[in-house]
Amino acid sequence: MTVKQLSMPELVDACGELGIPGVGLWRAPVQSYGLERTAKLVREAGLTVTTLCRGGFLTAIDPAERTKALDDNRLAVDEAATLGTDTLVLVSGGLPAGSKDLHGARERIADALAALGPYAEERGVRLAVEPLHPMYAADRCVVSTLTQALDLAERFPAHQVGVTVDTYHIWWDDRAPEQIARAGAGGRIHTFQLADWTTPLPEGVLNGRGQLGDGSIDMREWKAYVEAAGYTGPIEVELFNDGLWARDGREVLAETAARFTRHAA
Amino acid sequence: MTVKQLSMPELVDACGELGIPGVGLWRAPVQSYGLERTAKLVREAGLTVTTLCRGGFLTAIDPAERTKALDDNRLAVDEAATLGTDTLVLVSGGLPAGSKDLHGARERIADALAALGPYAEERGVRLAVEPLHPMYAADRCVVSTLTQALDLAERFPAHQVGVTVDTYHIWWDDRAPEQIARAGAGGRIHTFQLADWTTPLPEGVLNGRGQLGDGSIDMREWKAYVEAAGYTGPIEVELFNDGLWARDGREVLAETAARFTRHAA
Repeated sequence: MTVKQLSMPELVDACGELGIPGVGLWRAPVQSYGLERTAKLVREAGLTVTTLCRGGFLTAIDPAERTKALDDNRLAVDEAATLGTDTLVLVSGGLPAGSKDLHGARERIADALAALGPYAEERGVRLAVEPLHPMYAADRCVVSTLTQALDLAERFPAHQVGVTVDTYHIWWDDRAPEQIARAGAGGRIHTFQLADWTTPLPEGVLNGRGQLGDGSIDMREWKAYVEAAGYTGPIEVELFNDGLWARDGREVLAETAARFTRHAA
Repeated sequence: MTVKQLSMPELVDACGELGIPGVGLWRAPVQSYGLERTAKLVREAGLTVTTLCRGGFLTAIDPAERTKALDDNRLAVDEAATLGTDTLVLVSGGLPAGSKDLHGARERIADALAALGPYAEERGVRLAVEPLHPMYAADRCVVSTLTQALDLAERFPAHQVGVTVDTYHIWWDDRAPEQIARAGAGGRIHTFQLADWTTPLPEGVLNGRGQLGDGSIDMREWKAYVEAAGYTGPIEVELFNDGLWARDGREVLAETAARFTRHAA
């Protein structure tokens, strides 16, 4: 998504050229290029699919909407399995229209995880609940802290449900380092993502994630936390940024790789 | 600040007309109208000044900047005393330019509180550390949760340093209710403010606070928490909202009073 301006073949080619060994994919571009076709493309290029983003949006109250959401998440699990990744990232969803009940919404996520966890396990896929920054609590994700994400995940086996650790969403939280240790001890860090925090935030606060090194987050500090917690998996850089999307995709990918080396490697 | 389009005499007049018994004032409009003149105006109208907003911005590293900030905060304490309010709200300040050290910034706030607390006490003024929403952690306030605000405040006597409880900043936090109980038990809820959470957030995320009832926050729920914690002080409505500011101020004040009755009283 960091370089969504690249087509799937351009992305795979650019990763090969830059020596980037793995990539997190999003469902829409995969569906658009074709699921089997994407799977074949990355397999033949020797590129690892680190995660599939994203399932989730599991907070609906209406039974028909809930059924539809669960069906879509089973499909996302199937897609992950086809792409050869073992991790599906879940963005839980916001408050249903008119609701002010965060606690109830979080409980409905737990209900959904109970249904989806075994389905995913059978297909070799783990669910990675991602806490999103509290500024998304109303309209995107009622799971706002790593503590909350782990409180949900720990109701299930770690090989079914873990968490996504993303610096952008948790950097402000002084309890996050201890929660990373908690997640690591339980084998629940299913992916680790980097983005920097820059201000001012854009309208809608969705597409202002900063290039590594441009903002307030010490990437090495957070990398040290997950490593101390035993994490040895891939590190993803996920930048939603209108400025980066307006530029040449290969150039942005090369810059991102260089920034990763400078600020995180 | 909710009706900053009103002049000080218009504000005082409108409060009297609507039966609003108290008002939180901001420093800039007070200074602009004149400190002594404002004090006389509210005193003669029988209007209580609930709080003065705001001191703070105490995170600078540079010694000259720190001295300047402390001087300005002493002046704010003096202003609060002159206005006859016992509470000065503090917005702590963000990260200094180039710094990524949230912990260090929070410690410098503690140092400043140690200097300001006794000064305020001598003048009959309490400092109310306000946790701001985590989306302001970089550029406005490194104190992001009620837990952090209390961790700071509890290093000092409660009659010197307490906290501001503002629904807008803490509504997403499932630990906030227990922290309100903690604050109340220690006599540290120095003011209670209401604003609703509406989306999408505007660019810069500063002036999008929702009118009561327009958003995701259950005002009565939070009012019940502070009341259960023993709080009996004034309840302020503080809305930074470009849309409200563009309208007739008296109309907005009347609407706000009506919304308060409907959603919080």
